[in-house]
Amino acid sequence: MAANVAVVGATGAVGQTMREVLEERDFPVGRIKFLASGRSAGSEVAFRGKAYTVEELGEGSFEDVDIALFSIPKDLSRKFSPIAARSGAVVVDNSNAFRMDPEVPLVVPEVNAHAIADHKGIIANPNCSTIQMVVALKPIYDAAGITRIVVTTMQAVSGTGREAIEELERLSRAALDGTQVKPEVYPFQIAFNCLPEIPNRKPFGPGGYTEEEIKMVNETRRILGDSSIQLTATCVRVPVFIGHSETVNIETKTKLTAEDARALLAKAPGVRVVDDPAGGVYPTALDAAGNDQTLVGRIREDLSVECGLNLWVVSDNLRKGAATNAVQIAEYLL
Amino acid sequence: MAANVAVVGATGAVGQTMREVLEERDFPVGRIKFLASGRSAGSEVAFRGKAYTVEELGEGSFEDVDIALFSIPKDLSRKFSPIAARSGAVVVDNSNAFRMDPEVPLVVPEVNAHAIADHKGIIANPNCSTIQMVVALKPIYDAAGITRIVVTTMQAVSGTGREAIEELERLSRAALDGTQVKPEVYPFQIAFNCLPEIPNRKPFGPGGYTEEEIKMVNETRRILGDSSIQLTATCVRVPVFIGHSETVNIETKTKLTAEDARALLAKAPGVRVVDDPAGGVYPTALDAAGNDQTLVGRIREDLSVECGLNLWVVSDNLRKGAATNAVQIAEYLL
Repeated sequence: MAANVAVVGATGAVGQTMREVLEERDFPVGRIKFLASGRSAGSEVAFRGKAYTVEELGEGSFEDVDIALFSIPKDLSRKFSPIAARSGAVVVDNSNAFRMDPEVPLVVPEVNAHAIADHKGIIANPNCSTIQMVVALKPIYDAAGITRIVVTTMQAVSGTGREAIEELERLSRAALDGTQVKPEVYPFQIAFNCLPEIPNRKPFGPGGYTEEEIKMVNETRRILGDSSIQLTATCVRVPVFIGHSETVNIETKTKLTAEDARALLAKAPGVRVVDDPAGGVYPTALDAAGNDQTLVGRIREDLSVECGLNLWVVSDNLRKGAATNAVQIAEYLL
Repeated sequence: MAANVAVVGATGAVGQTMREVLEERDFPVGRIKFLASGRSAGSEVAFRGKAYTVEELGEGSFEDVDIALFSIPKDLSRKFSPIAARSGAVVVDNSNAFRMDPEVPLVVPEVNAHAIADHKGIIANPNCSTIQMVVALKPIYDAAGITRIVVTTMQAVSGTGREAIEELERLSRAALDGTQVKPEVYPFQIAFNCLPEIPNRKPFGPGGYTEEEIKMVNETRRILGDSSIQLTATCVRVPVFIGHSETVNIETKTKLTAEDARALLAKAPGVRVVDDPAGGVYPTALDAAGNDQTLVGRIREDLSVECGLNLWVVSDNLRKGAATNAVQIAEYLL
């Protein structure tokens, strides 16, 4: 069975990856259309060797569309997702617009695919940092329960978008040449620096936490279906193009050895264990880039508590953190 | 009172910073000599506008030397520190050779200056990641006790040395130009990537922890004089030239609000609070570079435990993390 697909936000970093992932996974596409804001409409994109003109997103865009993959700003998603749903499409929305809406399932297929069936026309794709973490947490949660998580993220600039990729390039070259270039996307220089502020230039929330840090708390609880999980996060932007790295400290209800955790993760869907302490083997953002799996290494018992683990979790933020997760949800819909 | 000083390892990244810090702080130098391995001996270094020829480090190097600031590899330190001490010099050693030796004080002046008096000719300078963390922890420890710490470090390449600075430059340029350059210093590409392995290419220790992660546990307990402190660390090398950033999650014995912590840190020696959540103000590695203080921001209550705090701690790893701390110890000796 083939579906008519719309990729909404087709020219952005995630939208482009959605096209790639649909191709790679041989998604059964009937008709496909590519939509974007007026600014990008009229440009051409390639799909399965054919050129498509990007159409301007409008109220009439969703006739005959079965599945709409959205990756556009939250306010536009809030406007156009219900329009698409009313036209009969199922929306998989990558923005933050509906993630905590009780009427909208928030889904990572490896963790809570069962929630997809409850959709009323819109399904939310979680935040990139949360997706890769819960993929790695799920087998541990099922085996031993999780009471608390302390996570630090090191997030790639592609999570901000194309303009941030260009800024990292431009500022890196300038710094290497000994010149100063004023940042435009980020509030401070991202080249050869670490910025503990995600997203940019937004007022910090309650308790001084940023939106991303609050998302990680709420979305993790919702996806794992356990509001008793305690979580604290510090989210940091680092000068990496693609691939988020995370240090994840976990307290479990019952004891797991590092060997137990390694065995559980080795057979978990969507996970690849890349971990050999004796051989100096661990995964990095560069290994994750272009890869649909979540890579886990540096698996250690945390000796500072009775039942604790430390993990190093790396994934391609544009793929499993966004496009791949959305396409996986679409696959479940068929 | 002026002291005759020897800077040992004068041509390295830390050795050069020692010269700068001695100048800036107007250290009362009588005679000064600069020592290095045979490879660097004969080169010239500048100090207070005068050129000095670097002499080869040998058994006779320490006659008439009062204070010897060492920044050379551990095995050389282990050999030459006792020789210098027997010659009558007091050694401040930046290597890992003596840090856990009960006969050798391990000192961060803001935290345990009292230990300096117990020296028997050698004083150890702690690990860079530990120094900046304990400077920030001390006022919190004194006010509320600390039971557990979960720390993630994002460490600059200058901690590895000059050759790593060059490698980050070279590999960054290559990556920007779309070419591949084989890493030599680091086991994997450091440009636009994060490597959870410090130091490089050494077998991981017990439990899969790296040397740096184990140092942070042992040195923190020793400097704060409290072996009951539980600590778990993940240490990550990031593509930053100077300045280590750390996310430090703390559990205290009694409750501190973020406001309490901010007030305590604001009056702590060696600390500068750079923290305004409403204004998007926090410190970064670039702010810390060239600065002797430890910068603390993103001060938040950790709501996942009853008495918890999150801090973002940034410092110049060559200065407070190495040279400045050593020169401060030397100042106490006078």
